[in-house]
Amino acid sequence: MKKALITAGGALAAAGAVRALRRSREGFPQPRSGGRRVLILGGGFGGFYTALRLGERLKSYAGTSVLLVARDNFFTFQPLVPDVISGNTEVRHIAIPLRRHLHRAGVNFLRAEVEGIDLENRIVQTSRGPLEYELLVIALGGQPAYFGVEGAEEHSLRLWDIRDGLRMRNAVIGRFEEAAALRPDDYPPGLLTFAVVGGGYSGVEAAGQIHNLIHKGIRPDYPWVDYGQVRLVLAEGLPEILPEIDPALREVGRRRLTNLGIEVHTGDFVSEVSPEGLSFRSGEFIPARTVLWSAGGRGSEVLESMTAEKDKMNRIVVNERLQLPGHEGVWALGDAASAPGPDGNPVPPTAQGAVQESEVVAHNVYASLTEGEPREFEYRPLGQLIEIGGAFALSEVMGWKLSGTLGHALERAVHLQRLTDRQKRVRVLMDWALDYVFPPDTSDLGL
Amino acid sequence: MKKALITAGGALAAAGAVRALRRSREGFPQPRSGGRRVLILGGGFGGFYTALRLGERLKSYAGTSVLLVARDNFFTFQPLVPDVISGNTEVRHIAIPLRRHLHRAGVNFLRAEVEGIDLENRIVQTSRGPLEYELLVIALGGQPAYFGVEGAEEHSLRLWDIRDGLRMRNAVIGRFEEAAALRPDDYPPGLLTFAVVGGGYSGVEAAGQIHNLIHKGIRPDYPWVDYGQVRLVLAEGLPEILPEIDPALREVGRRRLTNLGIEVHTGDFVSEVSPEGLSFRSGEFIPARTVLWSAGGRGSEVLESMTAEKDKMNRIVVNERLQLPGHEGVWALGDAASAPGPDGNPVPPTAQGAVQESEVVAHNVYASLTEGEPREFEYRPLGQLIEIGGAFALSEVMGWKLSGTLGHALERAVHLQRLTDRQKRVRVLMDWALDYVFPPDTSDLGL
Repeated sequence: MKKALITAGGALAAAGAVRALRRSREGFPQPRSGGRRVLILGGGFGGFYTALRLGERLKSYAGTSVLLVARDNFFTFQPLVPDVISGNTEVRHIAIPLRRHLHRAGVNFLRAEVEGIDLENRIVQTSRGPLEYELLVIALGGQPAYFGVEGAEEHSLRLWDIRDGLRMRNAVIGRFEEAAALRPDDYPPGLLTFAVVGGGYSGVEAAGQIHNLIHKGIRPDYPWVDYGQVRLVLAEGLPEILPEIDPALREVGRRRLTNLGIEVHTGDFVSEVSPEGLSFRSGEFIPARTVLWSAGGRGSEVLESMTAEKDKMNRIVVNERLQLPGHEGVWALGDAASAPGPDGNPVPPTAQGAVQESEVVAHNVYASLTEGEPREFEYRPLGQLIEIGGAFALSEVMGWKLSGTLGHALERAVHLQRLTDRQKRVRVLMDWALDYVFPPDTSDLGL
Repeated sequence: MKKALITAGGALAAAGAVRALRRSREGFPQPRSGGRRVLILGGGFGGFYTALRLGERLKSYAGTSVLLVARDNFFTFQPLVPDVISGNTEVRHIAIPLRRHLHRAGVNFLRAEVEGIDLENRIVQTSRGPLEYELLVIALGGQPAYFGVEGAEEHSLRLWDIRDGLRMRNAVIGRFEEAAALRPDDYPPGLLTFAVVGGGYSGVEAAGQIHNLIHKGIRPDYPWVDYGQVRLVLAEGLPEILPEIDPALREVGRRRLTNLGIEVHTGDFVSEVSPEGLSFRSGEFIPARTVLWSAGGRGSEVLESMTAEKDKMNRIVVNERLQLPGHEGVWALGDAASAPGPDGNPVPPTAQGAVQESEVVAHNVYASLTEGEPREFEYRPLGQLIEIGGAFALSEVMGWKLSGTLGHALERAVHLQRLTDRQKRVRVLMDWALDYVFPPDTSDLGL
């Protein structure tokens, strides 16, 4: 009880410190309606950040209303989605209420599904009716790409939003519930094999998180399962995982995965996913009852019916000003866009890409309203932060390369600092502090 | 940033204190299989506590295996379910992994749905096949009772488990999303009326939580909704709400509700629920698009096909030993049972009732195995703890009556102390500390 009180003291001290940070939410400007209308589609990194930045710029500028339309009323802090699998970060803590921040910036919000974009007539069709616009920002994001692999969409889980993270988490727990009710000799093939397809940032992090969930959370709670039958596989078709980072760091990452007992399976593409497992082009078959598909994305389905030019991944092709060629007053960014990047390659579809682009889109929309000078976009890769299995990360930031615990500290600090919302930042910090003390939760809430 | 570091310091101090509390999870006994089998059905207060207590008693007693069967792999701390509506307590923090605690007590666990109980042949049918038993404890809980009110089940939400709490929360947020997209004159009737049917403990707490969610969380985030059209109604058919508590305290509760702007509508039973609203026996109609049904419960559906004697609320009638008359070796408790209580009334279907009963059931099962003396159950009401709308509670504990902030402090302390799981206790404490600082979250995660 005394210790509980010390804990209480700590919590209250923390709360007190934060209370000082609190400031009045009164007095932010009422969003303008009427006047010239800027419509922003999508509430991810691209749309949310464009709205915040444009709102700031327009505060002293009357006669324009900005409306952001998104399916969910929250912004998801994507870089921490894999952490949902082990539960070291609580789902709600990486979801940030859009309205809370948009109102302060004087931006309106409408929760609706975007169903079509008619560039000729300047109308967007939504689940709540048509919306006219004068200027349009398309930041509708993407969806998983299955590259025509048979069975991939039907028989695998994905890791696109926070609900997907929970589904994967529950699926893993469910397999151990099944195993716990059987004798080890009776386990069906692949019951305890968990395969992640895709060796990029998300796939590597997801594999590490599944490892954490199993060995820190599930193992103590399901002690009589045969852990000799647990297999974790990370499958990447290219010869190397993590192609975007420095080769030396990549090698450290691969060693880390191997040390955790994760089989890194490279240089062989998956050709089919079935309820029984993964088939590879080489003819190899790995029995696996649980497959997470994390092999990249393509532009959102909604874009398909649009008349604009798109690349082969269904991303809208934009010019250096992030504008749709031939469509004055229409911009696209983030995963929905293919923008010219360094060495003639498109800007990679990452959070940092979208955030950098939002700066230029906000500037150019404002310039268009005020007859100012538009800017050209130049992508500056800021580095990579990749956590692998708790208390270990690869960090490559502005030329610094760190791995292990130090890399992890940097990864956590940067993600926390970028979390946008003060409340959520404190809550995630608490989650991480407690994660250091307690094993992961194993409740399958069915959510 | 400095303040963020202070916060970090607080969190780490708290974490350090808790770390000291951590003890090894190694070395708990492997559950016995084979031998004489005790089967416990249900993982709520009745089943979970019986299992823990029986496990402790049987630790030094070989030749018996105890198996608990439940639909979910977690125990729900029911008294805090209404808090899920405002989000001041995170859903996962009131869900406690059953296996983690059962293993320590040497009790086996199977996640399965109970489909039927055959007392004659001593077999329980489950979604994972039939289970034989020698001794049986039925703690399957209950489900909402609709008393034949037309439309009640179809057109209202319920507050039975944590998922229901989330659904209600999302429904409330959804209404404000709708309102935010309309001009106040265009709101359909009852769009912003939230009605709770049932003036017992849960209903009163739920009404307070809805008030909190709306006025502390939603209001700052949806500032241009017409709050003049918001109505909160608590409907109770009997002349008084909270019939179980002291009349003076009840009056304080009613005043508190009224002060919060919650309309307390008593002495008139609901006769119909439709998508448009509530009809009363008196002929009154209240337009309400969102109705929460919290008017009490009945024994679980599974019990219907059982041959045992049941009361009119489908609860199994048990004797003073909490045993089914005429069925040696079968006990029932909690919401699934009707046990003789004080003044000839049955024991009320509450958490404290179930916990007290579990002590006697565990004793009597053990006595039956060891040919000891069975005990008779005597219900001792320990009081009531009812939070109404944050920082206020009615507390009646062992003759003490408290209301307001003091009552609230007592309510929180008692619930925290009873939370069973150390990790969850710390997390809930953190939730409450942060709730004191930050407004409730308004993200509708769709979960």
